[in-house]
Amino acid sequence: MIRAGIVGGTGYTGVELLRMLALHPDVEVAVVTSRADAGVRVDAVYPSLRGKVEVKFSLPEVSTLSDCDVVFFATPNGTAMLMAEPLLAMGIKVIDLSADFRIKDVADWSHWYGMDHASPDLIAEAVYGLPEVNREAIKSARLIACPGCYPTAVQLGFLPLIEAGLIDDTHLIADVKSGVSGAGRKAELAALMSETGEGFKAYAVNGHRHLPEIRQGLGLMAGHEVGLTFVPHLTPMIRGIHATLYGQLRNAEISVESVQNLFETRYQHEAFVDVLPSGTHPDTRNVRGSNNCQISIFRPQGSQMLVVLSVIDNLVKGAAGQAIQNMNLMFGYSENKGLDIIALYP
Amino acid sequence: MIRAGIVGGTGYTGVELLRMLALHPDVEVAVVTSRADAGVRVDAVYPSLRGKVEVKFSLPEVSTLSDCDVVFFATPNGTAMLMAEPLLAMGIKVIDLSADFRIKDVADWSHWYGMDHASPDLIAEAVYGLPEVNREAIKSARLIACPGCYPTAVQLGFLPLIEAGLIDDTHLIADVKSGVSGAGRKAELAALMSETGEGFKAYAVNGHRHLPEIRQGLGLMAGHEVGLTFVPHLTPMIRGIHATLYGQLRNAEISVESVQNLFETRYQHEAFVDVLPSGTHPDTRNVRGSNNCQISIFRPQGSQMLVVLSVIDNLVKGAAGQAIQNMNLMFGYSENKGLDIIALYP
Amino acid sequence: MIRAGIVGGTGYTGVELLRMLALHPDVEVAVVTSRADAGVRVDAVYPSLRGKVEVKFSLPEVSTLSDCDVVFFATPNGTAMLMAEPLLAMGIKVIDLSADFRIKDVADWSHWYGMDHASPDLIAEAVYGLPEVNREAIKSARLIACPGCYPTAVQLGFLPLIEAGLIDDTHLIADVKSGVSGAGRKAELAALMSETGEGFKAYAVNGHRHLPEIRQGLGLMAGHEVGLTFVPHLTPMIRGIHATLYGQLRNAEISVESVQNLFETRYQHEAFVDVLPSGTHPDTRNVRGSNNCQISIFRPQGSQMLVVLSVIDNLVKGAAGQAIQNMNLMFGYSENKGLDIIALYP
Amino acid sequence: MIRAGIVGGTGYTGVELLRMLALHPDVEVAVVTSRADAGVRVDAVYPSLRGKVEVKFSLPEVSTLSDCDVVFFATPNGTAMLMAEPLLAMGIKVIDLSADFRIKDVADWSHWYGMDHASPDLIAEAVYGLPEVNREAIKSARLIACPGCYPTAVQLGFLPLIEAGLIDDTHLIADVKSGVSGAGRKAELAALMSETGEGFKAYAVNGHRHLPEIRQGLGLMAGHEVGLTFVPHLTPMIRGIHATLYGQLRNAEISVESVQNLFETRYQHEAFVDVLPSGTHPDTRNVRGSNNCQISIFRPQGSQMLVVLSVIDNLVKGAAGQAIQNMNLMFGYSENKGLDIIALYP
Repeated sequence: MIRAGIVGGTGYTGVELLRMLALHPDVEVAVVTSRADAGVRVDAVYPSLRGKVEVKFSLPEVSTLSDCDVVFFATPNGTAMLMAEPLLAMGIKVIDLSADFRIKDVADWSHWYGMDHASPDLIAEAVYGLPEVNREAIKSARLIACPGCYPTAVQLGFLPLIEAGLIDDTHLIADVKSGVSGAGRKAELAALMSETGEGFKAYAVNGHRHLPEIRQGLGLMAGHEVGLTFVPHLTPMIRGIHATLYGQLRNAEISVESVQNLFETRYQHEAFVDVLPSGTHPDTRNVRGSNNCQISIFRPQGSQMLVVLSVIDNLVKGAAGQAIQNMNLMFGYSENKGLDIIALYP
Repeated sequence: MIRAGIVGGTGYTGVELLRMLALHPDVEVAVVTSRADAGVRVDAVYPSLRGKVEVKFSLPEVSTLSDCDVVFFATPNGTAMLMAEPLLAMGIKVIDLSADFRIKDVADWSHWYGMDHASPDLIAEAVYGLPEVNREAIKSARLIACPGCYPTAVQLGFLPLIEAGLIDDTHLIADVKSGVSGAGRKAELAALMSETGEGFKAYAVNGHRHLPEIRQGLGLMAGHEVGLTFVPHLTPMIRGIHATLYGQLRNAEISVESVQNLFETRYQHEAFVDVLPSGTHPDTRNVRGSNNCQISIFRPQGSQMLVVLSVIDNLVKGAAGQAIQNMNLMFGYSENKGLDIIALYP
Repeated sequence: MIRAGIVGGTGYTGVELLRMLALHPDVEVAVVTSRADAGVRVDAVYPSLRGKVEVKFSLPEVSTLSDCDVVFFATPNGTAMLMAEPLLAMGIKVIDLSADFRIKDVADWSHWYGMDHASPDLIAEAVYGLPEVNREAIKSARLIACPGCYPTAVQLGFLPLIEAGLIDDTHLIADVKSGVSGAGRKAELAALMSETGEGFKAYAVNGHRHLPEIRQGLGLMAGHEVGLTFVPHLTPMIRGIHATLYGQLRNAEISVESVQNLFETRYQHEAFVDVLPSGTHPDTRNVRGSNNCQISIFRPQGSQMLVVLSVIDNLVKGAAGQAIQNMNLMFGYSENKGLDIIALYP
Repeated sequence: MIRAGIVGGTGYTGVELLRMLALHPDVEVAVVTSRADAGVRVDAVYPSLRGKVEVKFSLPEVSTLSDCDVVFFATPNGTAMLMAEPLLAMGIKVIDLSADFRIKDVADWSHWYGMDHASPDLIAEAVYGLPEVNREAIKSARLIACPGCYPTAVQLGFLPLIEAGLIDDTHLIADVKSGVSGAGRKAELAALMSETGEGFKAYAVNGHRHLPEIRQGLGLMAGHEVGLTFVPHLTPMIRGIHATLYGQLRNAEISVESVQNLFETRYQHEAFVDVLPSGTHPDTRNVRGSNNCQISIFRPQGSQMLVVLSVIDNLVKGAAGQAIQNMNLMFGYSENKGLDIIALYP
């Protein structure tokens, strides 16, 4: 039994960590912080947790977290980089769900996130927490940078193709659609139901913060820089990401069956990546609430353009679930412990 | 480990049984029937179950189910009454999620359901599966009639008041709102998203089949017939029932605090009925996917009119979850085995 | 052609006024104010108005509005009471969509709205803008207090019954459901899609600001105080109000047909109140975007409890449409000018 | 005043024609057919039309339509091709909203629509009713083939680029998202709210019937065959299409400003195509219920990949509105008569 702390427990990734950790057989949620709600019972803010979570919110201070074995940061960007160092110094493992340690190039990070990095030395040490790519490094890591939600869906969809060098990686396209919970639990006009229900739009087409993260990940897989156009969209639902990925086959001789085989082989031992039978279309509803990524591959009308469809729940495989998957690896637990959840359909 | 069969596995209550039974530590789902999909893998129809359910659909025949310890009927009305008898004769316990055995008065049942009853003798034996009322009888039952979704929410909301005789039970009002999954997984024009999204309406105001069931249940609690107006509504969401219940206090001296105490006391040992702190409004989102019923009590503006708010997930506490709760009781398992699920919020 | 001003043009009632006034043949929208967006083109904030509205937002000052013939207040409560007097003094008619002049009892208003009234003398003069009740007074009024959205739906549903004295008015119940646009265009956590989509809840059960307004209106119809329990609910859609109203017939001999006749007769000359054929259930989708109120009457199972269903679009008949209906009456236009809109179905 | 008939009045495009034609100052809706509902008042099926449409449904027979000046087909594919010839022979103009006359290559049509064409001779005569491309031909046409919803959004987005030869048209990508009303008013399991709400998926990736139509249209613009990958998606809302279009600039020197100018110039006289200011993202909510297409152009991160965003209401500019726009042109009316509708926001 390990003791876990959650910094930033009042956002959607925070409550989602609680939903899963509260039932994890080897974890005790010892500390949940919230500056605004310190002293209040967690289940008073989240009645869905009544009977399962008995703690109160604490102030987000290093001293409060000193008895933890692992601390999750479910905070806005810029917080984890201030607190990670003292926690690590106490021997506490840190799993950051924010973007603070995702980008290896500090200048690039500062450009996209609009602030100086407070802990640049830790960036190099941080392991990018995509288990399907970095499993071994994660097992021995002290500090994990959990991937963003869009980057998870996009990278898992492109991964086998880029590793195998099958597609022209200079003109990749990722047309991705997200539910509104990705905007977080913040009082913002643009996230009102009256502004997001019954409507569909793209946003940040000229540049979204997840672009450099995806580019970095795909570049590492390819061994060189890739060219990527990434267009995020907001879809009128709460949870779910659907990535529609486009890449040209380098070789017209390659059959869609062989690509299907490639995906199935690459992911055959992955508990949370599920390559659907050929011809099936994934639906975000089939992964809602679960840590699964479901993927399909198409080569429409025999053209050289390959289309990969990849769906996740942005709050689970795209955030809290993947964080717990990392935790399981770091502490030697079975990778799916506490994550044995079936999607809520319908 | 017991072996369970599900007759009618392609509806929403069927797949919901599978979602929970697949993770139940003491149950093996041995048989799932579907006339239309016989021979097809269950997870081909429900990709959310991939990796968790390996069986194929079978034809709905008694012989196929003969090795089961318990059989759930997640069928349209009129099926369970044909198959229950031979199953019981083989020593198999039967849990019926349809309405076949809910109404004790056969003529009344025929009137509301528009058919003759094929198994009238079993009606008397069937135990109405509302554990908060009939726990002991359920433990020794062979045949359970699971309550309908509306009846569950309404009866749990009125129960303490009627048992205690606190309200005038001649003019009870139940104004209840349901998500659209209550209409089932059937190709019907009225259940299209274009017909149900972004709109709100009442239906069946002149008489809904759940009216006699609720009236029977409340009457048994009261010890005499009650007067009830029941108005069901369709609300543009998939899961959830919200019952708003109105009853006049017989005695103006009774404080809302004492009513709150009455509810808390009545439900203090119930794992799945949660009386919220005074002044809190329940929200269906806080029970979505879980077997919980959350209840609040109000006495607005000091009037004699008491308002009780009661929310459940219609597919869980209103159907499949309650059925499993009954199964646990019948087989001597801990009542919340396999039902330790936290609601999916947001 | 009259010149209209809109104070508070950035809320949902403001943009809804613009949607309809921009196509009104006898109105020029001359001034639209917004403190935050002064100087910005209106259609830059509301791209739905591109090509139809050419003005820029102005600062909300009396001097800016001096050339108007009529000024609409689509502001939060507490603004109209500060500006109405100088505008009226200039001979400008004022139509207030906020609550500032709705409650005749100043002390009661202050109690519910939590502030002192800045213009108590005008309260007596203000005409409550429910044309179905006050048509003649509206025609000659200088200052209109437009009804709230809940009060419009509830009063139109109870009106014929209370005028005719058919129901016991000491225990009226109004169980009302609203879309989320009723919460306005404000950055509030509780109105996020993640907090309101796929969930249903009651709110303010102990006391909502529309309660005294409805009570006042029903009391005036009855000629004495009425007893009312009012429970508002939030339903996961953007537009629409559905009122489910309960009242006991004083006389069990009265048939539902005669009540149907009463409603049809009372509303036979009303352009915007539509009594549906007996047995039909109204749906908010059938009035979305239109100024219509659709009403049905039921007497379920022959009981003495009458159930009235009344639906409107909260932003149209519940706000901007009704305001324009009032304007038409005040300026001698045909009552449905600019309001000849068919609901957007599906 | 002309007399219009609508064949197939019970689908969503039928009722949408009625919503607009009922308020068109120069049109009388004389006949509305429905085999299933013949003899029933139209407003009994569509209560949103009460007070505006007084006719009853007729049987769909040529004789019934003989007094019409124009007949709209809002039918499933395969009906218009049977009835168009006799109607045209009587001097009646025909506007077909189905796919019967869209594809010039009869064999290609039969391949995609799975039936023989009953009226191949009329295909050549039929004018493809995209006014922005074929305005002059439409004015003198007897028979109009209205574009599909996806083809309208995609063609208007690519049109200026292809006409100007600015992009490589061998690898065009159209990633398009549609609301569920596009599936029509049919009782189908896949269109239930429980199956489409709160979920997002692609469908028909290997080949959708609108692919040959789009390819034909773009080919005619280009003067040669184009290469296109078209991926349709279902998004959980009722109305709206959002096309995200990708094409590589042939010449890296071309600035996004000059592309913006190209679009603005090309569409400067178009009443229903609105090029948004640079940097703005269109939202389907801003065209809901209106006949507008709103378009934006991006060149993200200075790459050679151009991204065009194009939104319409699938039932209006993608169906009924465009049909009326065609009718206005055919009868010499102002093009926006009866179409002066502002989108319903929020």
